[in-house]
This record gives sequence, C-alpha cells and structure tokens, in this order.
Amino acid sequence: MRFGTLEAGGTKMVLSVGNENNELLEQASIPTEAPEKTIPAMIDWFRDKGIVSLGIGTFGPVDLNPASETYGWITKTPKPGWSMKPLLPPMRDELGVPAIIDTDVNAAALAEWKLGAAKGLNSCMYVTVGTGIGAGLIIEGHMVHGLVHPELGHMLLRPEPNDPSPKGFCLFHDSCLEGMACGPAIEKRWGKKGYELPPDHEAWDLEAAYLAQMCVNAICSFSPEKIILGGGVMQQRHLFPLIREKTQKLLNGYVQHTAILDSIETYIVEPGLGTKSGATGALLLAQEAYAG
Amino acid sequence: MRFGTLEAGGTKMVLSVGNENNELLEQASIPTEAPEKTIPAMIDWFRDKGIVSLGIGTFGPVDLNPASETYGWITKTPKPGWSMKPLLPPMRDELGVPAIIDTDVNAAALAEWKLGAAKGLNSCMYVTVGTGIGAGLIIEGHMVHGLVHPELGHMLLRPEPNDPSPKGFCLFHDSCLEGMACGPAIEKRWGKKGYELPPDHEAWDLEAAYLAQMCVNAICSFSPEKIILGGGVMQQRHLFPLIREKTQKLLNGYVQHTAILDSIETYIVEPGLGTKSGATGALLLAQEAYAG
Repeated sequence: MRFGTLEAGGTKMVLSVGNENNELLEQASIPTEAPEKTIPAMIDWFRDKGIVSLGIGTFGPVDLNPASETYGWITKTPKPGWSMKPLLPPMRDELGVPAIIDTDVNAAALAEWKLGAAKGLNSCMYVTVGTGIGAGLIIEGHMVHGLVHPELGHMLLRPEPNDPSPKGFCLFHDSCLEGMACGPAIEKRWGKKGYELPPDHEAWDLEAAYLAQMCVNAICSFSPEKIILGGGVMQQRHLFPLIREKTQKLLNGYVQHTAILDSIETYIVEPGLGTKSGATGALLLAQEAYAG
Repeated sequence: MRFGTLEAGGTKMVLSVGNENNELLEQASIPTEAPEKTIPAMIDWFRDKGIVSLGIGTFGPVDLNPASETYGWITKTPKPGWSMKPLLPPMRDELGVPAIIDTDVNAAALAEWKLGAAKGLNSCMYVTVGTGIGAGLIIEGHMVHGLVHPELGHMLLRPEPNDPSPKGFCLFHDSCLEGMACGPAIEKRWGKKGYELPPDHEAWDLEAAYLAQMCVNAICSFSPEKIILGGGVMQQRHLFPLIREKTQKLLNGYVQHTAILDSIETYIVEPGLGTKSGATGALLLAQEAYAG
C-alpha cells in the first residue's frame, strides 16, 4: 500500500510516499511559491505514484475543522499569496484520494507519540524551534485542536534581566516565545546566525532560559508526560542540559514528580524519530484517511 | 439514587448528597483540621445517608493515577498534617462504596462542560481565582491529568510595569500567576482585602492584566473553546470586561477566530452553574464511580 505525505513549510514542500510499515520510500522537495504554481506541481508529482490517500502536516494558521467550509485552507497569514487559500481540497480532489490535514507540529507530535520518544504515554508536547516556534500536543491520547490549534510560539514570557532585546522581535507581541527565541530572533539579537555562535556564547544561556520558561508554563498548564524539542535551533544539542537545569530551577521543586525531580534528562528530550517526525506524522494521517 | 459528594478545601470540607438528576439535596460543612479528625467526621456524616458511591473534588497536590498505590492521597503539601495522607481510601473503605477523586478545579470544569457554560463543546478551561489559583481542563472531550495535574497558578507571567510588587508573593516562584493575582496577593500588595477596594482602584486594572496574560497563554498553549473564571476574586464582576479587553489587546489579532475577535464576551465567561460547579462536578464523578 502506498500513501502520500506532504510536509507543507514556509520555504519548501516536502513530498513523500510511505507504506503501511511506517517507512518513507521516496521523497521530493518543491520550493514554496504562490499556491497557483506550487499546488499543481505537487499534484503532478503525486499523480503517477499510486497513492491511496494523502496526509498533510502544514504551516499555519490552518482551518482544521472537518465540518467547516474552509477545512484544509490556510487562513489569514502574512505569507504572500497564501492568505485564505485552499491547500487540502485541490489536492484531494485532483488526486481523487481521501486526505487529512493537521499542523506540521501536531503531525510530528502524533508520530513521536505513536512511534517515537513518547510511545506508550498518554500525552506529550512536540515543539519545533526554528524559523518560528510552534507546538503540537497529544493530551489524554488525543491530538489537540481546540478553538483553532495551539500557537505556542506566541505565549508571553518574562524578559530575562540580561536580555539586550527584552521586547523580542515578534511583529504582534512584546516578549512572546517566538519573538524571544526563534532562529531569526537569535540572529537579530546577536548579529549572527545561531550556528555561527560558539557554544559558550551568552546567547545560549539566554535561549535556554526562554525555552525553560516555556517548559515550566507547559508543565503548569497541561502537565505533558514528555516534552520533545526539535527544529533547527535544537541542533545545538548543548542547549538540552541547560534547558533541563533551568526548568528544574524555575519550578523549584513545586511539581513533585520523579520525571522532573529525578530524571529530567528523559523528560525533556530530542525527537525519537530524528528529523523524520513530521513526515512520519503525515504518513500516519494518510493511513488514517485511508482507514476512514 | 443517592450519591455522596465531597469538595475538599483548605479551610472547609463541603459534603453533600445528590441524585441522578444532578440535583444537590442536602449539604453540610466541616472545618478542615487534621485528617485524623476530619476524615472520621466526614465518614460519620455520610454513614446514614444511603449513598451508593462517592465523588471527591479536592485541593492538591493529589495522586490521580488509579494504578498508583497512593491513588487518592494528598501528596507533599505545606498544609499542616496533610502531607502524604490518604483521603479517598479511608472514605471508600469505611463507607463501602466505589469512589473517584479528581482536583476541585477538574471537577468544576467537568460540571461546566457537561451542564454549564461549556455544554456541547469539546474543550474548556475552568479557573478559580481565590485563596489560590488553579485550573481544570477539558481537552478534546477528556479531563486532563497528564504527568500530575495542571498547576496553572504557577505559570510564569511578566510583571506589569506599574506593579509595586513585581515579584509577587509565591513562596516558590517569582512572578507566577498565583503569586501575582490570588486573593492574598491582592491583600499583600494593597494592604486591604479585595472586597474592601473600590471598583476604580488601580488594583483591578493590574489584576485584570495578569488574568489576561493567563488567558493569552492558555489560548496559545492549548486553545480552549471556552474560558470560565470563578472563585472569590471573580465575584468582582467588573473584572470581566477588563480581562476581555486586555486579552484581545495582548493577542493583537493574532488568533483569528470570531470567538476572540468578535464575541469575547461569550468566550471568557462566568460559571454557568454559579457557585455549584465544584459540588456538581463531584456529583458527576460519583455517578461515574457508581456506573463503574
């Protein structure tokens, strides 16, 4: 059985074909341009692949309500050309296969929960820290949509006293998580890209402090059983011990669970599926679409 | 059919008997003293009431894992006499009826979701703002436990520039929600109890600012379909319009849903069950315990 998967990102569309054993068999990448150009190109790629269904993990904001007339549309976004544009409907209709869409981070959370770092648990949070910051949540065994879908990148944080840019760089909010800690925020604050900064640069202590605030607020808000941190910025693996230490220090013993008090190195973790969480999640969505 | 309910609070235990029509028939209140004294008194009250099961909504922290050896125990707490003490087990065993326990705020959220302000939705957050601050969550139709249970009162906030006490009053954390905005924090900051401060006192603008930060972080984190604010401090009903306005202002149009943009007065609301959310939730838990 062959399933189509799409990871729709702001700069590229990653297409692949996977099977019922959760293996990704072949992959292609198409730059994200105007939907009038990019969507037909994606349909063309899938047309002779013999897929039985399609799973999409996408950038947002996206309408995830299956009962809505704009299900599978990108909703209002500053991204040129994509505001209020259908993504799922033309692909489903042209390819003639059932399709399911979710956010890229919900797809990644789903894969990490079914097959990766959170396997066997009832809940987890998957966070990507890269060009933007977003989170997908599994809570009590269910992927979380709610009113819209989580927009964790816009959680408000308290500026650290040693931050030279205490308001951050979000166009919408002062001192929100994304504005403080995404890749472009690191570059704007320090004048260099993250990967150009050495591991002992003060940027990383500050980065870890904001990501630790995020972990604390997630733990206090919905108590996930595992926090999984992925995305480009988290390739700086020296961040992990800093984030864990600062999370414990901020919580100050208040949340009394061994996962946090005694074994935080297995609580705040890297993705179990490496860089394949998103595509694997889209494959799981495609399998679900096929099963109906 | 008669069901027993217990709202276990820090200062009093509220006991009642309810029926299968979700009506509370009779009620009693016992001061919360040492468990060795208070628990037998509660058992005595229920003994001749003919209850078929018991539902408990309690202060925390509490072990909610039915598979745990300490299910239904209050875990480590600074509350004198109650640290690591069983609450559910002695009542269940002495009364010989099945019992279920959850947090007081989860019970209230359950009742508001089944019968109150969030009826018919898939998710809601119920927050109590009083002696402490806590939240119960329903997400995708499930009550949220997770690693422990939500401890929303300890979410970190950013101090408002005009706050004379920018670190707040929590013993564990600087500038956490409860330390900034619970009833005792209002009293410590302004030298008077909340109900002694007039509606035009600057305390309320500040209080609303912190509760709006909480709403924003909840919306960005897990996207609840309704936010219900209860508890003693929220008896200051003039807070509601302030919180709604500040929530919209902080979100700055980012989360594009009519519930927030156009009808926030029906999104951030008072409890639909008034002051009965907690007891009604305990009754629903008792019904669930009986149904098995």
